[in-house]
Amino acid sequence: MNKNPVGIFDSGIGGLTVAKEIKKILPQEDIIYLGDTARLPYGTKSVEAIIQFSKENTEFLISRGAKYVVIACYSSSSVALDILQKRYTVPIIGVIKSGAKKAVELTKTGKVGVIGTTLTIYSGAYEKIFKALDAQCEILGRACPLFVSLVEEGWFDHPATKLIVETYLKPLKEDNINTLLLGCTHFPLLMKVIKETMGDINYVDASREVGLELAQELKRLDLENHEGSGFISIYLTDLSMNFKEIGERFLGEPMHNVSRVALKGV
Amino acid sequence: MNKNPVGIFDSGIGGLTVAKEIKKILPQEDIIYLGDTARLPYGTKSVEAIIQFSKENTEFLISRGAKYVVIACYSSSSVALDILQKRYTVPIIGVIKSGAKKAVELTKTGKVGVIGTTLTIYSGAYEKIFKALDAQCEILGRACPLFVSLVEEGWFDHPATKLIVETYLKPLKEDNINTLLLGCTHFPLLMKVIKETMGDINYVDASREVGLELAQELKRLDLENHEGSGFISIYLTDLSMNFKEIGERFLGEPMHNVSRVALKGV
Repeated sequence: MNKNPVGIFDSGIGGLTVAKEIKKILPQEDIIYLGDTARLPYGTKSVEAIIQFSKENTEFLISRGAKYVVIACYSSSSVALDILQKRYTVPIIGVIKSGAKKAVELTKTGKVGVIGTTLTIYSGAYEKIFKALDAQCEILGRACPLFVSLVEEGWFDHPATKLIVETYLKPLKEDNINTLLLGCTHFPLLMKVIKETMGDINYVDASREVGLELAQELKRLDLENHEGSGFISIYLTDLSMNFKEIGERFLGEPMHNVSRVALKGV
Repeated sequence: MNKNPVGIFDSGIGGLTVAKEIKKILPQEDIIYLGDTARLPYGTKSVEAIIQFSKENTEFLISRGAKYVVIACYSSSSVALDILQKRYTVPIIGVIKSGAKKAVELTKTGKVGVIGTTLTIYSGAYEKIFKALDAQCEILGRACPLFVSLVEEGWFDHPATKLIVETYLKPLKEDNINTLLLGCTHFPLLMKVIKETMGDINYVDASREVGLELAQELKRLDLENHEGSGFISIYLTDLSMNFKEIGERFLGEPMHNVSRVALKGV
């Protein structure tokens, strides 16, 4: 048992979907969330910069007592996970690996579709992880950049959303994938219309999978908190004018306890 | 007469729509374009950071011989134009002011609609400029964040685009604006569907207006080049994998002579 909070970091507020899943799975864990909004997006930065930002984020969470660190950012998960795991004694997991593991477990035909931002898909981050897992899957990546704006606008039921989802997912449907991995923090909010389009296949929400892996890990390491109240403290490195509206959409509840924090490099 | 190039800077490659208009209006001017892609987007950064970046961009263009500097970035135009004009002897104009001047000139009813990114609209940049111009207009701002992604995807004729344009512009139509100012470098590429939706009103493309103002200015200051070939050199502070595809959409022609450049702060 350990009453310290779980730490989560992301380049922005999209990672609050990970916080939401962790709250659902582990309602007694307190959470400390850091969104590096001053330096987003990470995806366009150099690998060196992403690693440096990820170190600063991790150190902030550790300085606030995090007993476990979850990387909710796809760019950080892709390039910094191994480095951070070697550098710090606090255990660390990342959203990409958890999602990929689940997709490998579920696929029978070995045809996995992965959707994400242009940067996630073109960076080859998923191919790398699937290869490291020694998976015999065929990976079909599809960049869906408009999904991010649709989610930030809250247009979940707009007729345009249905048309856009159909356009992006058509090639994956024609390729008969049997498992679809949602590889972006924003995409779980479009799950309903994605399911309407793709029908009866397996869906993997990486935000949820990293939460489930965290639960197993906390149990294994005897780090669970059975007495917490699920308190979430949110730290952002910059406050944009609509962060609250969008953030509450991701978190699924009102955002209290939001503070602005200055990291050393920001 | 002055054979030196015209300098243009933007936080990214969207400002190439300004380069395109300048090439059309002034085909004999050589152009040097700087896109600070390593630090985009500017809109989410602090005012101090935007001013600092704008200084570095201006100094780079001056170091390469720019005889005139055009700010194609809306965030820079909004917060840094006056400061840069005072600081450097090279003359400087910005995209926001040129567009607003034209809208004031065209509107009869005094009802001007302004569309832009969330950051441009909520920052109040246009209200400030219209006020400084002493314009008696009613300004109706409307943030259209999905337009940026639609343009970057090249979905100009997609059925979803029509639906999205109709949704965003409905309130402006109901308010009977008679002039619509396109306040984002990306939006001129959606002009066709915007016109289909809004019908017979005045349209102001700020990318074109700043080009026209530049032409007047070069004439007034006797800085025109009558012997150039319209050569455009493009410098970017970072190269993303799809910058060429998207950039050529903005520029309207193949991008040759693209170099990566490191500014002192990048």
